[in-house]
Amino acid sequence: MIQDTTGLLYENLASQIARMIDSGGFKSGDRLPSLRKTCVQHGVSTATAMQAYMTLENRGLVEARPKSGFFVRSRWSDTAPEHRSSKPSTKVSTIKAKSLMGKVFQAAGKPDIIPFGAACPSADVLPAEKLSLILRTVDRRNAKRSLTYDMPPGCEALRRQVSIRSLDWGDHLQPDEIITTVGCMEALNLCIRAVAKPGDIIAIESPSYFGVIESIRELGMRVVEIPMHPRDGMDLNALEEALTKHKIAACLSVPNFNNPLGCCMPDENKKRLVGMLAKRKIPLIEDDIYGDLHFGPSRPRTAKSFDREGLVMLCSSFTKTLAPGYRVGWVAPGRFYERVLNLKFTNTVATPTLQQLAIAEFLKNGGYDRYLRGVRRFYAEQIQRFGEAVSQSFPAGTTLSRPAGGFVLWVGLPKSCDAVELHDAALERNIGITPGPLFSATHGYKNFIRLTCAQPWSKQIERALSVLGDLAKRLSKD
Amino acid sequence: MIQDTTGLLYENLASQIARMIDSGGFKSGDRLPSLRKTCVQHGVSTATAMQAYMTLENRGLVEARPKSGFFVRSRWSDTAPEHRSSKPSTKVSTIKAKSLMGKVFQAAGKPDIIPFGAACPSADVLPAEKLSLILRTVDRRNAKRSLTYDMPPGCEALRRQVSIRSLDWGDHLQPDEIITTVGCMEALNLCIRAVAKPGDIIAIESPSYFGVIESIRELGMRVVEIPMHPRDGMDLNALEEALTKHKIAACLSVPNFNNPLGCCMPDENKKRLVGMLAKRKIPLIEDDIYGDLHFGPSRPRTAKSFDREGLVMLCSSFTKTLAPGYRVGWVAPGRFYERVLNLKFTNTVATPTLQQLAIAEFLKNGGYDRYLRGVRRFYAEQIQRFGEAVSQSFPAGTTLSRPAGGFVLWVGLPKSCDAVELHDAALERNIGITPGPLFSATHGYKNFIRLTCAQPWSKQIERALSVLGDLAKRLSKD
Repeated sequence: MIQDTTGLLYENLASQIARMIDSGGFKSGDRLPSLRKTCVQHGVSTATAMQAYMTLENRGLVEARPKSGFFVRSRWSDTAPEHRSSKPSTKVSTIKAKSLMGKVFQAAGKPDIIPFGAACPSADVLPAEKLSLILRTVDRRNAKRSLTYDMPPGCEALRRQVSIRSLDWGDHLQPDEIITTVGCMEALNLCIRAVAKPGDIIAIESPSYFGVIESIRELGMRVVEIPMHPRDGMDLNALEEALTKHKIAACLSVPNFNNPLGCCMPDENKKRLVGMLAKRKIPLIEDDIYGDLHFGPSRPRTAKSFDREGLVMLCSSFTKTLAPGYRVGWVAPGRFYERVLNLKFTNTVATPTLQQLAIAEFLKNGGYDRYLRGVRRFYAEQIQRFGEAVSQSFPAGTTLSRPAGGFVLWVGLPKSCDAVELHDAALERNIGITPGPLFSATHGYKNFIRLTCAQPWSKQIERALSVLGDLAKRLSKD
Repeated sequence: MIQDTTGLLYENLASQIARMIDSGGFKSGDRLPSLRKTCVQHGVSTATAMQAYMTLENRGLVEARPKSGFFVRSRWSDTAPEHRSSKPSTKVSTIKAKSLMGKVFQAAGKPDIIPFGAACPSADVLPAEKLSLILRTVDRRNAKRSLTYDMPPGCEALRRQVSIRSLDWGDHLQPDEIITTVGCMEALNLCIRAVAKPGDIIAIESPSYFGVIESIRELGMRVVEIPMHPRDGMDLNALEEALTKHKIAACLSVPNFNNPLGCCMPDENKKRLVGMLAKRKIPLIEDDIYGDLHFGPSRPRTAKSFDREGLVMLCSSFTKTLAPGYRVGWVAPGRFYERVLNLKFTNTVATPTLQQLAIAEFLKNGGYDRYLRGVRRFYAEQIQRFGEAVSQSFPAGTTLSRPAGGFVLWVGLPKSCDAVELHDAALERNIGITPGPLFSATHGYKNFIRLTCAQPWSKQIERALSVLGDLAKRLSKD
């Protein structure tokens, strides 16, 4: 459990300084102001200032040097090489089957595995007891209700809460624009099916979450993969070119923290993306499942918030933030509302009642926001720690993503290191990872892996990353 | 709540006599043996015999005539006209959109509606408190578990329970042959997608559950509708003919209590059905969602129990028996296991964890069986009562199904009575029904309606059926 420490003075101070480090106000090697100076500047006690500095030290942001004070640590993100933009084929691809996918998911279910594979939040971090208490209270209050169908568009209390939250990301969704779903995956499926048919071409990001690629394949559609800038996301010039060249039925994007890159598309790009698709009346399916897990101070906007035509279909869920096992997601399908509603009826009829009621209650009573504040900081720190371990133990030339949110790292190994071989070797040692070829329609990214950094840092995690680094070195022939 | 009265002496005696009435041992108008004689014959007290007779009277099976004793009542099912076999077109149909479907479902969600529409069990009849207590206990015991993914094939405890139960219906499914799903609807969807592609032809029963027809339409497939005998189900000679005439990708059948007819296919027909499809290597998608709700003494076998080739894909759920809002179903897809498993990953990733655990526990501790014994009797009685009311208040010439299980009646109105008009007029009076055209790909059954008989009998129900009868009379021009 993440402890809720909001309101504690030293935590606020630590966050302020951390932001200055992030923004470059303090650079690697800089000496932080003395404790005494800090006390005066911020009007806090010496004890508070000391606690703030120790917090920053625990997070690996600063180090104490005996008799000299606290210094900003040199961080892997200042030195480890970053990815270049991806360069997928500009041709339309018929998707290759992903036989490895089941293996990755099934490994994730094993209790004894080191879970760097599937992008699941760790159960140790989720607000299990709080949410469970709410769920049980809701159920005890009205056992009949949780037993009966919650017919689409789904739980009104939950849709109202999503509507309120949508103000945070620049939208003002109405409850009756929203349909609840069995996780984000059902939402994406319904959207794809609503606007495209077998044989059609979907423009997707490259790399893209493999579940979505596999879903498009199973629907008998094809894709064209759009290059990704490692920080700004989808290359819009490349998209423009693809739109000119091919008859594209829909575009699917994760503007906020693409999985696996973790990058966040700048607002002006989101606006441009929505505009260029609207001009051609092409729907945008926006996956915002990671949107609430930003490391920066403010919740990034959705592309949907720039939508004036009802062409953006916004999908999300509480899978990455609250409860994967609850299977509660939602979609705001814009002008395709009726189509998606009908597909929802035929796909699963209704979304489980009880979990919707429980999450609605958790959102309403403020628990979700409190929880998010803690968990965002936690994931930001995890990414730092994992990144540092990788940059220390992996082969020279390993490139690393710079996630701005979420909890995964995208790791580029030396060209000669085969990610599938690494996956198999790691699994033998009970370490789960996700090999790069899954993130491409044509099995590209052969020397890439995705690491999920959700499991709280421990000696065991540290050892596993070191083992992984050794394996990667052994498999790198150059 | 159905009271568990098993083991009570008078209930056993009443059931014995009821079975004799059902089997024709006692006929309409027969006088039952005197109380004294019954006491001697069965070795029970006068009070017990009296209670048994009163129970039978309450169920509408017998009537007391002053100073003469108890007599078997004349029943509507002995007199009301029955349906003839359906005669759908033998051509391949492109399915017409079902714009009414959403209306029927949404009406079902309203609290003030008389619920003869959607085929939902009544919340007043479900074992809400028991199941809810189990669910809360399971959740309290391990809150983390219910929060985390339950990766396909899904909850092992539940799969083990389904495996044990499968012996009752002539199967011996292994837990690792089963995949859990979000209700039966997801199971059916995955099966259809696993064995057919857009443009393909599916052979379905006529009439068939509209959700499945709509699902096939949304998947871009076509159907050929096979005639149904009102008691024996699918006309296998007609199916044979269709198989010869058309290239059929799969056959979809509800051998046990087709919705809306409620008929049960005899075992020899099930065997023949499986054999004739196996000869052509055509998969059979078997929907057994109503299988546990038989009125006869024994659980009917599944077609799957005759399957030797792994070509039968058995789908079911706990929606009609236990908890629609839990959304827990399952599929045993035979040789298509891997295909269905992959589709499950891409469709909804996983099934909600908590409800699977709760149902598994309910099955394991015997609660489900105890509940089923009560609810089967309840539905059998409900069908009797509804049938009687319909045969009394509906226009002359109204035909009625003779359900052998489930909780719906299929009602044929005079030719001139338009079911959609009746639906609209009924809805204005807050009565939900399902119009017949929904049960056909080409909007046939224009003068049929389906009545859900799940809501416990009351003055209000009685009045609503009478109002419905009056409306039907008014809309019948001949």
